[in-house]
Amino acid sequence: MLIQTPYLLFLGDAPDQLAAKVAQGIKDWRPDHAVGQFRMEGCKADLGLTDMTLAEAKAAGAKTLVIGVANRGGVISAAWKKVLVAALEEGFDLASGLHNLLRDEPELVAVAKACGCALHDVRVPEVQYPIANGAKRGGKRCLAVGTDCSVGKMYTALAMDAAMRERGMKATFRATGQTGILITGDGVPLDAVIADFMAGSVEWLTPDNDPDHWDLIEGQGSLFHVSYSGVTMALIHGGQPDALILAHEPTRSHMRGLPDYDLPTLEQLRDTALPLARVANPACEVVGISVNTQHMSEDEALSYLAETEKRMGLPAVDPYRQGAGRLAEALAAL
Amino acid sequence: MLIQTPYLLFLGDAPDQLAAKVAQGIKDWRPDHAVGQFRMEGCKADLGLTDMTLAEAKAAGAKTLVIGVANRGGVISAAWKKVLVAALEEGFDLASGLHNLLRDEPELVAVAKACGCALHDVRVPEVQYPIANGAKRGGKRCLAVGTDCSVGKMYTALAMDAAMRERGMKATFRATGQTGILITGDGVPLDAVIADFMAGSVEWLTPDNDPDHWDLIEGQGSLFHVSYSGVTMALIHGGQPDALILAHEPTRSHMRGLPDYDLPTLEQLRDTALPLARVANPACEVVGISVNTQHMSEDEALSYLAETEKRMGLPAVDPYRQGAGRLAEALAAL
Repeated sequence: MLIQTPYLLFLGDAPDQLAAKVAQGIKDWRPDHAVGQFRMEGCKADLGLTDMTLAEAKAAGAKTLVIGVANRGGVISAAWKKVLVAALEEGFDLASGLHNLLRDEPELVAVAKACGCALHDVRVPEVQYPIANGAKRGGKRCLAVGTDCSVGKMYTALAMDAAMRERGMKATFRATGQTGILITGDGVPLDAVIADFMAGSVEWLTPDNDPDHWDLIEGQGSLFHVSYSGVTMALIHGGQPDALILAHEPTRSHMRGLPDYDLPTLEQLRDTALPLARVANPACEVVGISVNTQHMSEDEALSYLAETEKRMGLPAVDPYRQGAGRLAEALAAL
Repeated sequence: MLIQTPYLLFLGDAPDQLAAKVAQGIKDWRPDHAVGQFRMEGCKADLGLTDMTLAEAKAAGAKTLVIGVANRGGVISAAWKKVLVAALEEGFDLASGLHNLLRDEPELVAVAKACGCALHDVRVPEVQYPIANGAKRGGKRCLAVGTDCSVGKMYTALAMDAAMRERGMKATFRATGQTGILITGDGVPLDAVIADFMAGSVEWLTPDNDPDHWDLIEGQGSLFHVSYSGVTMALIHGGQPDALILAHEPTRSHMRGLPDYDLPTLEQLRDTALPLARVANPACEVVGISVNTQHMSEDEALSYLAETEKRMGLPAVDPYRQGAGRLAEALAAL
C-alpha cells in the first residue's frame, strides 16, 4: 500500500464530528502525518488543525489528500469530486477507505493518470499475497483477540504501540483494516483478501525482525462471531503471536449484529484462542486484558477492571481511560 | 455456478490415469453426468466410458465439455484450444478447474460469445455472496473436519451422500472446492472467496431445508493447518453443522507442506472443533471418524480402525475400503 505521508486531511462537508473519525484517528495517533485540514462549506467537524487550501498544504509538504470522513449515501458527491480533482491537479495522491472506490470514478482515474498521481483505495488489496508457509520468524508479535467485533482491538494496539515507544521499546503497529491503514499509511485490508491468502497476507505484514522488536497486529472480528471468525483465525495463525491480549466490552447484550448469539466470557475466549495460537507458536501466552468501559461510569469501570484483574490473574486496563502502559510492561516482562 | 449436465469428459492428452482424476471423480460419483469421454492423440487415461466425437456427444445429450484432466505446465496448449473452440462451435458450454482460466483466453471468450455458450471457471466465484447472518436454518448439516489438509474429507462426504441415498435418506453433497463443483455442477469455490464473505457463502450454499434433509458439506483445510485454518473456521461457523466427522490420515509425519508442524491427535481435533462448532450450533455432536488408510495394509488398517473406534467411542471407518454406511447410520441415529 505505502501511502505517501504527510497528509492533508479532507473533512469535506462532515455533518458532525463523529463523521470525521478516520481523520481524528490520524490526528490522535500519527500527528506528524497531519499537516492540516481541508474543510468545505458547511463542514461541522473540526480537528483543531490549521485550515489549509490545497496550495498551502502542498507548500507545507503534504503529499496525500486523505478522505478522513464518511460520505453520505455512499456516493462521492459532485462537490467532493471538484476538490478531489483539484487536489490531483495540485499533485496530491488521494487515499480513501470509502465503499465507493476512487478507481470507480472515471474522472478521477483520468486526472490521476494525466497528473501522475496515485489513487489509494485502502479497502482493496494492492499486493498479491503469498500462501502462508508457517515458518518461524524473528522478532515478537502481539495480537488482540476480542469476545466480539468492534470492542476496541485497534485502539488497544495503537495505545500499546504508543506506550511502548514512550518506554523506548521497538514497536510497530501493523494495520489490518482501512482506518488503521490510513492512520499509518500501510497495511493489509484483511477482510478484502481472498480466503487462501489471508494467513499469508498476515505473515507478509509481520516479517522477520529484530529479536526485541514487537509487531502490534490490529485484530479483526472474533473467534465467536460467526460472520468473521475465519478472518480472526487467519490472524492468529498468520501472525503467530507470542502474546495475546483479550479485548472485551462488558455491556453488550449480544454479539454485534447477531441478536441470537451471546458473548463468550473472557475465560472462554482465553481457553479457545490460546490453544489455537499455540498451533503456530507454542510459546504464546495471554498477557493482559483490554476492556472498553465507555458505557460505564468511572466507578463501575474501575470496579469491573479490579474484579476482572483478580479473577483472571492478568493486568486488566481500559487503554482509553488509563493508557496502555501496563499492557506494554506485560510484553516487556515476557 | 450451476453447470449444465450431462457432460462430455475431456481427457485431452493425459500422460497417465492419475492426471484425469477430476474426470474419474465425476464418473465414480455422478455416473449419470458422464455421457462419454473425449481423448486426444496420445492420451494415456481411460475411464472406460464410450469414446465420442463432439458431434456424437452432442447427439447423446451432453451439454458441457468438462476439462477433467490437469494441464501440463499450467497453460492451455494450442492442441487443447483447438478442441475447446470446436466444442463451443458445436454448442457446448465449457467447465474447468484449471489455474489457467478459460476467461483469460481471448479466443475462447470470443467464440463463446459468438456461439452463446458459457465458460465456467470453477476456481472463481460467480456469485456475490452475502455476509453471514448466523440465523438458524431448517434441515441438518454434516461437516468433515480434518487433522490435516487432503486427508479425504471430500471423499468422505461423497461416500456418505451415496450411502444415505441408498438408505432412502434425504441428502445433498455441497461442494466447496473445484473438483466437487465439477462433480456436482454446483457449489462455492471457497478458497477463492473474499474473507468477509466466506461464512456467508457457506450459509448461501446450505440453505433452509426439510427437517430430515442432510447437507453433506465438503470440508476444506484444517483448524491445525496455519495456511488455511481461516477457511475451515468459516465452514464451521457458516455451515453450523449438527454433526462433525473427524477425518485423519495416520501415516503423515507432519502437516502437509509444513515440515515443522506435527499433526494433532483425533482427541485434539475433537476438543478444538466441537466447542467452536457449538458457537453456531449448540446441538452439534461429533458422530464418527473417517480414516484414510491408503498407505496401510488391510491388516494394519483394520487394526488401526478397531483401536481408534474403541479409544474414541465413535464409529471409525475407511469409506474407501468399507463404504460410509456406518457414518450414514450415525447421522440417522442423531
